[in-house]
Amino acid sequence: MADPVLSVPLFIELLDLLGTAAFAATGAFKAVEHKSDIVGIIVLASITGVAGGMLRDMIFGRIPPVAIANPLYVAITIGMAIAIFFLYKSFKQYEGIVLMFDAVGLGVFTVIGASFAYGVYGLNFLAMAFAGIVTAVGGGILRDVFVNEIPIVFVKELYASASFVGVVAFFGMLAAGVSVNLAAIPCIALVTGLRMLAMRYNWNLPRPKV
Amino acid sequence: MADPVLSVPLFIELLDLLGTAAFAATGAFKAVEHKSDIVGIIVLASITGVAGGMLRDMIFGRIPPVAIANPLYVAITIGMAIAIFFLYKSFKQYEGIVLMFDAVGLGVFTVIGASFAYGVYGLNFLAMAFAGIVTAVGGGILRDVFVNEIPIVFVKELYASASFVGVVAFFGMLAAGVSVNLAAIPCIALVTGLRMLAMRYNWNLPRPKV
Amino acid sequence: MADPVLSVPLFIELLDLLGTAAFAATGAFKAVEHKSDIVGIIVLASITGVAGGMLRDMIFGRIPPVAIANPLYVAITIGMAIAIFFLYKSFKQYEGIVLMFDAVGLGVFTVIGASFAYGVYGLNFLAMAFAGIVTAVGGGILRDVFVNEIPIVFVKELYASASFVGVVAFFGMLAAGVSVNLAAIPCIALVTGLRMLAMRYNWNLPRPKV
Repeated sequence: MADPVLSVPLFIELLDLLGTAAFAATGAFKAVEHKSDIVGIIVLASITGVAGGMLRDMIFGRIPPVAIANPLYVAITIGMAIAIFFLYKSFKQYEGIVLMFDAVGLGVFTVIGASFAYGVYGLNFLAMAFAGIVTAVGGGILRDVFVNEIPIVFVKELYASASFVGVVAFFGMLAAGVSVNLAAIPCIALVTGLRMLAMRYNWNLPRPKV
Repeated sequence: MADPVLSVPLFIELLDLLGTAAFAATGAFKAVEHKSDIVGIIVLASITGVAGGMLRDMIFGRIPPVAIANPLYVAITIGMAIAIFFLYKSFKQYEGIVLMFDAVGLGVFTVIGASFAYGVYGLNFLAMAFAGIVTAVGGGILRDVFVNEIPIVFVKELYASASFVGVVAFFGMLAAGVSVNLAAIPCIALVTGLRMLAMRYNWNLPRPKV
Repeated sequence: MADPVLSVPLFIELLDLLGTAAFAATGAFKAVEHKSDIVGIIVLASITGVAGGMLRDMIFGRIPPVAIANPLYVAITIGMAIAIFFLYKSFKQYEGIVLMFDAVGLGVFTVIGASFAYGVYGLNFLAMAFAGIVTAVGGGILRDVFVNEIPIVFVKELYASASFVGVVAFFGMLAAGVSVNLAAIPCIALVTGLRMLAMRYNWNLPRPKV
């Protein structure tokens, strides 16, 4: 196995930091709403920002996880937590802003996770889907569970499904010979866009009649 | 350490897939009851089906976990989720059917976890008990927590205790020279039977007076 | 990397067992309050006692985690669970006793986690802070989530912040040439004392106005 840390291109690492920041913001918002103090906000922001990727790394054996090996990750989650702490009032007037950050994180982490699996296992759809979805939904699940809510992934419009569609598109583009860097942006846009349209127009997949 | 993946006999692997299917069904039921869409159902079924074994593998250093290395596991959890999605109405008339699947999973995963530890560490009771119980209760704990319920293991009649009794019996049979394959079935039947009798007759271990 | 298991001095290991016992007691109390039976109490006590350290070990690649490799850990959590089971009534008249045990565990595990990272990475503040805080808050987060409460770390007076202050002090003393064993006690006392004073006088860090 090639060293997965070294094989991550700079562009993908920058994207990963962006997704970390987006998810960290959602964790910080939730903590503010639950009246955490500044350190509680930092802790929930950090868990939300890095848990998905850390879980992926632990499952696939990248030890220590990149979020530990590279101090930038935690620096970014702490920075976002402090920013939200001060800017909460200005932000909260924009309704749905937390879900927007969440949608960005969902898109970025789907592609990051899938490209990680691609770097390690090559063009293996199952590994890419698993790593993509775990990375994308892991942090948000913990965030919601820790403030005693049912995780968004189990109750909302297109969520894991948007992530899954992104993996399919990403896999297809790589299979067609497109480079990882080139495939990343449209696939992220696809997931994030799909999720935001689903919120806007209340798109849902079929649910069983209970 | 022998490669634990290769040392798993076919019979045990088949049992493991059965336990995975049983727990996946319970996760799918819970997700349906919480009005998840089809992908949310697949995600909760998969977590419930593979999380206990994955946690066991990560704790004991089998990386990647068997549920990743072998695509059959996730194929089964997805299949169960889709089946429950379509058959929910027919199933739900049988009261307690979720708890019955759960009891089957509890029995199978207790023995699977204990036999994994036996394969790696030999006849070590503590390792067998730890691996057996983690495998058996891990997925169900996450399932319940993710839909905002207190995990069954903390509130119900004989549950972890049934698993523990199964480990004791399994350990005893192996110590007496019985083969793993031969010991597996009666020990699974013991755990599952004990759990179902406990539900039926409301057997409880002593609880402190609060 | 030196073998982290062997490099742990006896004194630190004894402290680790003390922290495990303190957290196990808090888990046992919670389980009793939620009417778990004796085995449910043992399971929650064990999770609370060992999960933080186990998560730390899994993140940093110490496999199997020390709480598995050394049977004393689980023996202690089981012992505490049984003790609380019988002594619950005598204990509960002392208001706040659970939070006191929790404060002791917080202090001990902060220093244990930080000294683990110090043993592996040397004087690296980020690694020490991460390992210290994960070890200190991990078990308590799971304990609270599993009984459907918002984890104490997100809602209470100085909590993760007390742990953080302890890491800063510990790092400073090691940097100044104090030995790990000598630095451990005052830093534990600092965290535990800070947390208990915060409870007593209701000290809080700033929270955003929502």
